[in-house]
Formats: sequence, structure tokens, C-alpha cells
Amino acid sequence: MTDRIFVGDARVANLPADNRGLAYGDGVFETMRAHRGAVQWRNAHWARLVQGADRLRLPLPDRLRVDTELDALLRAQPDGVVKLVLARGAGPRGYAPAPDAAPLWLLSLQPFTLQAPPRPGGLVVRWCDTRLSLQPLLAGIKHCNRLEQVLARGEWQDAAIDEGLMLDSDGNVVCATAANLFVFHAGHWSTPAVDRCGVAGVCRGWALQALDVRVSRLSPAQVEAADAVFLCNAVRGILPVARLGARSWGRHPALDDALRRLADAHPAFSDRLETP
Amino acid sequence: MTDRIFVGDARVANLPADNRGLAYGDGVFETMRAHRGAVQWRNAHWARLVQGADRLRLPLPDRLRVDTELDALLRAQPDGVVKLVLARGAGPRGYAPAPDAAPLWLLSLQPFTLQAPPRPGGLVVRWCDTRLSLQPLLAGIKHCNRLEQVLARGEWQDAAIDEGLMLDSDGNVVCATAANLFVFHAGHWSTPAVDRCGVAGVCRGWALQALDVRVSRLSPAQVEAADAVFLCNAVRGILPVARLGARSWGRHPALDDALRRLADAHPAFSDRLETP
Repeated sequence: MTDRIFVGDARVANLPADNRGLAYGDGVFETMRAHRGAVQWRNAHWARLVQGADRLRLPLPDRLRVDTELDALLRAQPDGVVKLVLARGAGPRGYAPAPDAAPLWLLSLQPFTLQAPPRPGGLVVRWCDTRLSLQPLLAGIKHCNRLEQVLARGEWQDAAIDEGLMLDSDGNVVCATAANLFVFHAGHWSTPAVDRCGVAGVCRGWALQALDVRVSRLSPAQVEAADAVFLCNAVRGILPVARLGARSWGRHPALDDALRRLADAHPAFSDRLETP
Repeated sequence: MTDRIFVGDARVANLPADNRGLAYGDGVFETMRAHRGAVQWRNAHWARLVQGADRLRLPLPDRLRVDTELDALLRAQPDGVVKLVLARGAGPRGYAPAPDAAPLWLLSLQPFTLQAPPRPGGLVVRWCDTRLSLQPLLAGIKHCNRLEQVLARGEWQDAAIDEGLMLDSDGNVVCATAANLFVFHAGHWSTPAVDRCGVAGVCRGWALQALDVRVSRLSPAQVEAADAVFLCNAVRGILPVARLGARSWGRHPALDDALRRLADAHPAFSDRLETP
């Protein structure tokens, strides 16, 4: 991992111990795919970071400075997973945010190969017991309060399970622990709303534009009755789901079409087309 | 601030950048009052840390080591506010917790005088708009996912307001942003349950034992109709509430009795008896 740490415009050698990211998860982050020196959906990631920072009233670093540092990372290593964390700068002890604190931000770049490769037929997925609580004030943004996802991902150690689907406290299906969910039924795609919990994923945002998608509440039964299911995130693109408990799916023309569209728009994700 | 940072048994000079506290708020913390070299409710704080770590399946540091380091801090500075943060040790990127990672923990000691002194008549309190979401899996423990408290405390900058009361998404009163709530009505104290949200405060735990308290759901109207109201936390003890919006309270014998009991049990909090 390559880590660069900044407080405002100043690069610093070490993470300040009084950072509010550690204290309260008081920050937002973006996880991005770098491919041949380019960050996929670079503007969309920045836009979501700005939206999250606005919701939390976090001061932003200067974008030009972030871009300059990111480009320097990419020159040294053109492919991988870029993570940008933005946390509120230090202030006195207590929850009150110091409005003028310079923002703390970190850039890191990891090899993409750290990720498990997708299985040939698609992901094997389970239902999680951990529910997502309903908090409209935090829904949609990629903030650093992620204990629900940590608990959900901690429910299984079986390497044969790739991901877990999560319900909200009302029993609606929302997402996977680290991906959004799309199901195909009656000729169109559906994905859950993220207005009460969940993250408005950047690849989800692309799919909403590129495919015929309805945003709607989904029950577990509706997911299991779907003709095709995929998960997606900005690092791994579209990931077909092959199995969910006892339910299994073969490849579906609508899914192949979605994969092709994504590969055409973003070559980083063309490897998925080669799977049988 | 004096900070000591540890990974497992090893003291380290700087905070590791890949810590999961910063990434996901994946940790728990305790904020404690040191008085003449002794930590008030030291065992109760450790017990709650253990309970929180158990709930999140966080490996614990060795208690003897923590105690040794804490005592060293207290020898140098016998009074103040001690903060102990325990975060999950680093692992590969992603939500899956690495089960064997050595825990990251930090000890710091700040002067108590950083806190605003209580007003003579008691606290001035407001209602917050930010609601607490319902998440039984995280309720009660003092985890590091505190964005709801940060948002609530960010609702006001007026220095004439000391604290804000928070409701849960169902409209029940739960707590203040950094304190538990007790109301006196019809001859006994009541405090909200913390089984769906909120923190099981250590001073709250003391009050449940020392006073005649019922744990019950409370509406905003019930709080405003109370004969006496106090907030409490382990750093500041019992804090009488003098005003909540248009409602104001004078001192009440039941509150004076509670203050006296606390001062008898824990001399650190005897200063509150001297207020007129």
C-alpha cells in the first residue's frame, strides 16, 4: 500500500492521533478503480465525496491538490484500487465539530489482485442477519460509520461465499455489504432506493443511466424470483450472481448486455466478458 | 493532550494509517474522569469496553498492560479526562474483519478544565432535530460510529446552549448528545432504555443502582412535564437541567439528594454541591 497523508494542503508524515475519523468515524471515503493510469468515474467519485462532505459539513481539500497527488500515485502504479479518505480535522474533545479545522485526507493505492477473482459462473451470495438501520440523514453517502457492514461481513468466514445481501430494519432488501444490487424481472432491471439507508454507488449511478432501471423497494422473495441478479461497485464493475442459498441462475441475455455496455464505456471492466 | 499508541503489546510512535477505526469507525472507546490519581468507575469502564468489544468481536488488549500505562499517565498528571480508544487492527482492504490482527489502542489524558463549567442553575438544553436510528446490534455500547451525535451537536453554535436532547426515529426521547437523561416524576426517577439505540453510560449505571429508577420509554411531553431533570456522564457526573426551550426548573430535593449520593460515592463530583 502507498499512503499519502495530508492536513489541508500540507503533506504530513503520520496520521494525527486526534483525528475525528478514528474517534467518531467522522468522514467519508471513495474507493476507485485505476486502470492504465486512469481512474474510472473520476468525476462521479469526486461529486459523491462533495455531496457526502456537504451532508456532514466537512471542509473539502482543494481538488486540484487532490488530483495532483492522485496523478503522482498513478504515474508510479497505473493499475489498482485507489482509496481516498476525507476526515474532519482535529478539534477539542467532544462531538462539536470545529468548523475551521483543516481537513485530514489520505490517498492510497493497492494492487487490484488483492481482490478474489470472480468465479466463472458468477458470485455465490448469502442473506445476512445484520439489518441496516434507517437513517435518512446518512443514507446514500459513503461515510465512515460502517459497523453495520463490518458486522454483516463478519457473519461468514466460508471462502466459498463471496458476498452477503442485507435487509433494512423493515425487511426490504437494500444491497450487499460492499456492492449495490440489481435484479431483472419482467423485462427490466430494478434496484432498491438508498434514501433511508445504503450507499448510492458510483457504478449504480452509471447503471441507472445506461440500463432500463426502476428504483423500487424489493422483498427477499422478489430477489429470489428474479430472472437475473447482479451486484456492482466501482472497483469490480458488474458481478453476475450465480447462487443465493438454494436458488441458482444461469447467464441471462440482459446481464450479458449490461456487462457489454459497461465494458464498452469503461475498458477496465472488459475482463468480465471473457468468463464462460 | 498526552497520547500513547499501542498495537497489541507494542507501543508505537504513530497511528498506523490503515487502522480500521479511521476507515470504518470500527472500534469502541471510554471517556473517564481522573481525580487525584484515581479513575472514577475504573472497573465499570473496563467492563463496558469488554462488552462492546465482545459485541463487535474486537480482540482486547491485555488489561494489565492497559492499567500499567494508565497508571503511568496518572502519575504524571493525576486529574483530567482519560480517553481509551480500542480499534480493530489492520487487515486487508474491505469490511471483513481480520480475526487475528493485534488490537490498536490509544490512551490520552486531557485537563478537565477544557470542559465548560456548569452554569450555576444548571444546564440550558434544546431539542435536536437529528434522530437516532434503531439498531439493537449496536445499542448500548460505546462504539466509534458517532456521526448521529456529531450531526446533532453540529445543530447549534450558540454558547448559551449546553446540550441537546435526542429522539429516536420512533419519537421516543433517548439521551443528550453526550450524556444520559433522567427525569423525576410522581416520586421516582425514570430513564430511557438503551436497547435499540443510545449508550449505556457508566454514570447511568451507577444511578440505576443508587437511585429509585424505572427504565421506560419517555415522550418529549413527559420530559417537559417532569418535576426535575438531570443529564449525566462519567466525566461530569450529574448535571441538573435548568432550562429546556421555554420550560425551566428550579432545584428539586430529589436532585439535591442524587447529587449528594454521587458526591459521597465519588468525591470527584463533589464540586457540584457548591453551586447555589
